[in-house]
This record gives sequence, structure tokens and C-alpha cells, in this order.
Amino acid sequence: MAEITATFENTIETLLAAKRFNSLRDILTTMNPSDLAVLFENLPKDKIALIFRLLPKGLAADTFVEMDNDLQEMLIRGFSDIELREIIDEFYLDDAVDLVEEMPANVVKRILSQAASETRAMINEMLKYPEDSAGSIMTTEFVSLSPDMTVTDAIKNIRQTGIDKETIDTCFVMDSGRHLIGTITIRTLILADEQSKVGDLMDKNVISATTTEDQESVAQMFAKYNFMTMPVVDSEGRLVGIVTVDDVIDVIQDEATEDMEIMAAITPSDKPYLKTSVFEIWKSRIPWLLILMISATFTGSIITHFEDALASYVVLTAFIPMLMDTGGNSGSQTSVTVIRGISLNELNFSDIFRVVWKEFRVALLVAVTLAACNFVKLLIIDRVSIVIAAVVCITLAFTVLVAKIVGAILPMLAKKIGFDPAVMASPFITTIVDALSLLIYFSVASMLLNI
Amino acid sequence: MAEITATFENTIETLLAAKRFNSLRDILTTMNPSDLAVLFENLPKDKIALIFRLLPKGLAADTFVEMDNDLQEMLIRGFSDIELREIIDEFYLDDAVDLVEEMPANVVKRILSQAASETRAMINEMLKYPEDSAGSIMTTEFVSLSPDMTVTDAIKNIRQTGIDKETIDTCFVMDSGRHLIGTITIRTLILADEQSKVGDLMDKNVISATTTEDQESVAQMFAKYNFMTMPVVDSEGRLVGIVTVDDVIDVIQDEATEDMEIMAAITPSDKPYLKTSVFEIWKSRIPWLLILMISATFTGSIITHFEDALASYVVLTAFIPMLMDTGGNSGSQTSVTVIRGISLNELNFSDIFRVVWKEFRVALLVAVTLAACNFVKLLIIDRVSIVIAAVVCITLAFTVLVAKIVGAILPMLAKKIGFDPAVMASPFITTIVDALSLLIYFSVASMLLNI
Repeated sequence: MAEITATFENTIETLLAAKRFNSLRDILTTMNPSDLAVLFENLPKDKIALIFRLLPKGLAADTFVEMDNDLQEMLIRGFSDIELREIIDEFYLDDAVDLVEEMPANVVKRILSQAASETRAMINEMLKYPEDSAGSIMTTEFVSLSPDMTVTDAIKNIRQTGIDKETIDTCFVMDSGRHLIGTITIRTLILADEQSKVGDLMDKNVISATTTEDQESVAQMFAKYNFMTMPVVDSEGRLVGIVTVDDVIDVIQDEATEDMEIMAAITPSDKPYLKTSVFEIWKSRIPWLLILMISATFTGSIITHFEDALASYVVLTAFIPMLMDTGGNSGSQTSVTVIRGISLNELNFSDIFRVVWKEFRVALLVAVTLAACNFVKLLIIDRVSIVIAAVVCITLAFTVLVAKIVGAILPMLAKKIGFDPAVMASPFITTIVDALSLLIYFSVASMLLNI
Repeated sequence: MAEITATFENTIETLLAAKRFNSLRDILTTMNPSDLAVLFENLPKDKIALIFRLLPKGLAADTFVEMDNDLQEMLIRGFSDIELREIIDEFYLDDAVDLVEEMPANVVKRILSQAASETRAMINEMLKYPEDSAGSIMTTEFVSLSPDMTVTDAIKNIRQTGIDKETIDTCFVMDSGRHLIGTITIRTLILADEQSKVGDLMDKNVISATTTEDQESVAQMFAKYNFMTMPVVDSEGRLVGIVTVDDVIDVIQDEATEDMEIMAAITPSDKPYLKTSVFEIWKSRIPWLLILMISATFTGSIITHFEDALASYVVLTAFIPMLMDTGGNSGSQTSVTVIRGISLNELNFSDIFRVVWKEFRVALLVAVTLAACNFVKLLIIDRVSIVIAAVVCITLAFTVLVAKIVGAILPMLAKKIGFDPAVMASPFITTIVDALSLLIYFSVASMLLNI
């Protein structure tokens, strides 16, 4: 939870009880929308609407956007039509679209009926873009200029139209067919000679996304090129919207969370943990546990197959957990490194041989180190026979080698055939490596112990 | 690797061989610094300096910043003093600091000797801030205004001083003692009446970081408040620099990578995988593998302790991998969810009871589902006796319960006592849960099977 001292809520409630509305409004207007949203979530439900109405319109809209969906829905249900219309008018378009996507159908109907017809048309247009596409996170509010404007014209144009735009720091230059032909920053305009033409000052080397492009690849471009905004064009190169860096930060954090969840065998969700119901959490975790539990049966059947060997050398059983864990950990180290490299676009399929060759050499070093340490430990601390120590350590070395190679190859292959590489992380690798390590163990044992 | 078609390098080399320098320069100036950096890395070493000299000064500096350290060092060693001075003059200060931090001592000495004395003083000042602090990622180049300036004065001031500043989109208002008292965006200035005072227009509600604040918490504030820039003040509230959102995106990605590496039992590093030597990779992985391997000894000794029981019921051994894996996976699901919640500031220590209570209920559902499915499978497919099936499934249910509670509590406790919660992920949880699951297994077995 965000950090707000509990006394803040007390102050608000005390002032409300004393009907000190002016002081209340003054306190609220000093706060940020995100802090206000947290504050509202902590207030008693029956006070929220009353206090929310004290906020100035702009701040009310910004705060509303930061609230969680339950609170938004509660407020909307309490709004009069006029209140609803006023707040929708204050929204940036992309926020309105987010809201419409999250609300139940009857609330959506009311929102759309209160929105200005132009806004409604734009919301409907944007709802058509696929989830997680550049189109779905863009806003259609940006400043457009034409190349034959002078700097004075351009600044005049920005003054007239800019007040409603989400960002005016970068303006977009379009030809008469609405094709994007360049960008120009306010900074360039301010620093330039007043009579120069926008077309001569603009940066023609524009990198843009298309509406259907995946938001993750858009985020990668922001990270690579240090963008603040990025234009989005349709299939004919016409400018239809812009993505701003604040939405990209959310995308980057969400994608990292999603990768971590998939790597831990959880079906990813957008909801914060504390807001997710027990049943939903169960649903996101149980399928993978079941699949992995059933897969572990193979490992069990390998043991059953070698039951006789184990019965004559019960001591071998004691090393099964260590071999399985070390194999799993070695494999996970490699697979997580490779998966993250793929996510950050540092690795792609053509690097597979370099990666495997590197991991092979790392695995050799790791295998020798672990086997040597373990050999000494087995002889001195566990006091097993040299043959048993040899069986365990040879198995350990081969398991590490196999685990690291499997951990390197599987995520790469997954990416190649269009699966999410994150699936090939610890749980999956562990299950495979478990079976392989036992096979190696019993093969080495039968050779060295003649069983 | 970033995606550039191989033919681009061919074009450059062909034009260079034909000495078509003008065309070469034209092609290069259409490209972005990041793409150019990739291009230079792919070119033959002996051509790099020659082609680099074709770039216009500003683009050369921007491209240089994007290159990896080896390439930077090679170029610097080849530069004349005049060339070196020219490129340093073009750098933003924070980039110069990054460079100085990465280069070997003799190169640093040359860089500092060629930098203007004022730049040198600022570089030295910034090198004093702790690694990963707000001070270490800030730049000291920003536009400062005073509150009694008119809008016209302010814009004139920006025109005169703004050309060198990393961002002029937000300007910072200081009193005569250099204390930060407000911010104002170019957008506000452009849209405002020309005679209004900066002090009346500025936003007084400024959130700032201190120089020693952790960069991760700075990044969280950018994400929470949708900042583009954030001021950094010293312990007396005097403005000393600003952090810009492009550096924050790098911080967010690096911190996510670091968390994933720690969760996979790897000592984190800043270096891209393909640039890290085999020995360095070995060094970052081997300590954790050794620690975990030794810890697994306890699990082994539990098995040794119950050797007799296992000898009389060898069938029990076959289910050890399934019990260990399912326990580990259940625990990891919870610990990764909690660790990520802590990283994103959605969870803190005071939530521990809510988290444990939620996980307890999820664990009950998961335990019942898994145990029921497994019971049916054991009777129908594996055809074991009802008692054995009961032993396995009771153990399974308790293991899941214990694993999820341990997975919820350990990261929270780690955070509380100042450790990185990410350490308490899969490998560590697995090791603990392995031992616990075996203890449960043998206890249940001794009760139900009378051994």
C-alpha cells in the first residue's frame, strides 16, 4: 500500500464532521491525484461521494482516473447525469477508454450516453484496437502542425488548441493527407527564429508505431531511443494518435510482473494482489500445479523402475533431493538469464549457438567446482565409500551440464515457435531436469556398482 | 541483439571503400544514435574511427554515449586531445559522469584533463554520490527561473540558456537562497498571459527527491505520479539537479532484471549477457549453488534417518520427487507474488496478516484440489493401496499449506529486517520446503503404517 499516515484520514473526517468544507477543499487541492485516490480508498464508503464533490473539476477527473475500479463504479452509480458528463469532459481520451473497458455493461452504457458525441465516436474507434496494442494505449489528443506554418503561426496554433492536449512538448507535423512527415519540440520552436518554417525546423527522421503493434515492442523502443512520446500511424501512414512515456512505464512494469508470474507458474493477471479474491488466486495457480504434479509422475516411475537397485543401496536415496535441487537450480539460473535477455531484446534466436557455447563452458566450470566440493564433503563428513561418492559426483556433474544446456535451449526454442519463453523457467525446467538427473544417477550407479 | 539488417553494414563499407564520404555522412545523419551505436559495433575495428569522424559533432556525442564501454575506450584512445575536448563539450553532464565511472583510470585522467574546468568540477562533485542514488543518476543541467520574473522574461531566459539543457519542458523556480519553491512547464508559459509572474503561475506542490535517496524509490515515484522530470535537492532543500524519465526507464528495467536474477539465485550484474565472460558468469552463479547444495544435505539426512521405514516400504520413495516439486512450486508461486508486491510498493510489512490469511485460504483450496486429484490417480493409475494413497495425499495437502505460508512470511520478514526479499524466492523456499515435506511424509507414514 502507498504510504500515507493514518492521521490524514482522521483530519478529513474530523473536518467533515465539523462541516469545515472550505478547509477541506483547501487541504484536498494541495494533494496529488494518486495520493487522493489512496485517501478515498481509506475513507468510510458513505463519506466518499460527499468529499469527492468538493474537488475542483480537473483534479476530480485526475483523481478518479487513479482510483481502483470498484471505487470508480460506486462513484459513477452515485453521480447525476450532469456530474457524470462534467467529469467525462475532463478526461483525457485514453483514460476514458480505459474506464469503459473496465466497467460493467450498464455503467458503460450510461458513460457513453453522457459523453459528447465526438468523444463517444473516438472511444468507440479506440475500443476496436486489440488489447495490448499500441492503439489501445495511445491517446488521440496531440498538437498537429503543417510544414508551411511559421514559428509564430505554430506557437499561436498551440496556444489556441494546446490547452486540452495530453502533451504539447512534442508537436506532430502532417501533410495535407494527414500523413506524418515530422516532429518538432516546443523547445525547438521557442529557441528558433520566429519567421522560420516548421517544415525546415522539424525532425524528419521520425520513428512511429502502427496501431496494431504490440505494446511491449513499443515500450522497448521508448527504452532504446529515450522517447517521451511516440506517434502511432495507421496502415497507410496517417497519424492517428500518440503514446506517452507515462503509459509506457506502466507497460514496462506490467510486462516484468507478467514475466515473473509466468516464470513462477502463475497465470498472469492485471489485478493488484490485495484486490484479487482467494478464488481468483486459486484459479491462476492450480492448473500449473496440476500439470507439474502429473509430470512429476514420470520421475516417480523412474524410481519405481530402479526399485531393486535402491533396495540394495538404500544410501543412494539420501542424495536424490540434493541432485534434483542442484540440477533444478543450475537450470533455472540459465533459463531465467536467457528469458530476460529475450524480453529485453538483447538475445534472439540467431544467438542460440553463442548462448549454448557460453553456457556449456560455464556449466563445465560449475560442474567441476560443485562435484569437487561435494566429493570432499561426502568422504570427510558423510563418510561414504569412494565408489558411492564417485557415483554421486559424476551424476552431479552431468546433471549440471544437462540442466544448463536444457535451460539455454528451451526458452530460445519457445520464442522461435511463438510461445512465451517465460514458461520455460524454473518449474518446467526442474521437472525435466529431475527426470534426467535420476536417469543419469541410476545409469552411473549400475555401471560403477554393478547392479 | 538489436535488429539491423546486415546489408546496412555492407553499404557503409562499400561506400567507404569507394571514398564516397558525402553520401556516407548523409546516410549516417539519417540514423538514430542507438542504431548508429549498433552499426559501429558491427563494423570492422579498423574502420570505426574513420567513419565516426564523419558524424556531425552533436550526433557523434549522442552516438558515443550509446556505445558499449570497450568501443568507447577504443575510440577515446584514438582521439586527439582536440577531438576528445570537442566531444566532451557536447555531452550532457550525467552522460559524462557515466563515462568516467566506466573507463579505466588512465582514460579517466585524459578525459578530466580535456574537460573544461567547470565541467570537471561538476563531474567530480557528482562522483561523490553513492551508487544507485538519485544523485548518481541526476543531471545538473536544468533551467532555473526566479518567482518574480514575468512570462516574457522567463521565455527570454530560456531562449538564452536553454539550448544546452537536457530538458527545458519543465523549469524550476528557486528563491534567492537556491531553495526549490516551485515548477513551471513550458506549456504553462506558452499558454499564459505574457505579463503574469512566474511565482503566480508555478506549481508550488513540488515532490522532490534527495541526493542520497535510492534510485528505486525515485523510479517508483515517477511511476506513481507520471513524472517526466523530478527535482533533486540536498539536505537543506537546495536544488542541485534533476532526474529525467529516460534514465528512470533504465532504472525500472535494471531493477526488474536484478530481482529476477536474485530470485533465480544469481548475483546480479549490470553487464549484458553476451558481453559477460564465462568466468564472470561462473562467479555470479557458483556461490548460491554451493550454499543450496550444502543446505540440501539436511534433506538427505532426513531420508537417512528414516532409512528403515523406506527399506520396508520402498514404494514410498517413488513419491518423494512429486511431493518435493509440488511443495516447491506452491511455495514459489506465493513468494514470487509477495516479492513483486513488495517491489512495486503494493505490499509492506503491516500487510503481513492480510497476506498470510489470504494465502492460508488459497492454500486450503489448492491443497484439497491437488490431494483429491492425486488420490484418484494413485488408486486408478498407480494402483497403490488406500493407506499408501492416504499417506501421500495427506502429506501433499500439508506440504502445500506449509509451503504457501512459508512463501508468504519469509519475503515479508526479509524486507522487515533489511534484506532483499527477492532472495526468498524459489531456490531458497524449495530447499526449506523439501526438508519440511519429508518430515511431514515420514511422520504421516509412521502413524498410518505403524513403522
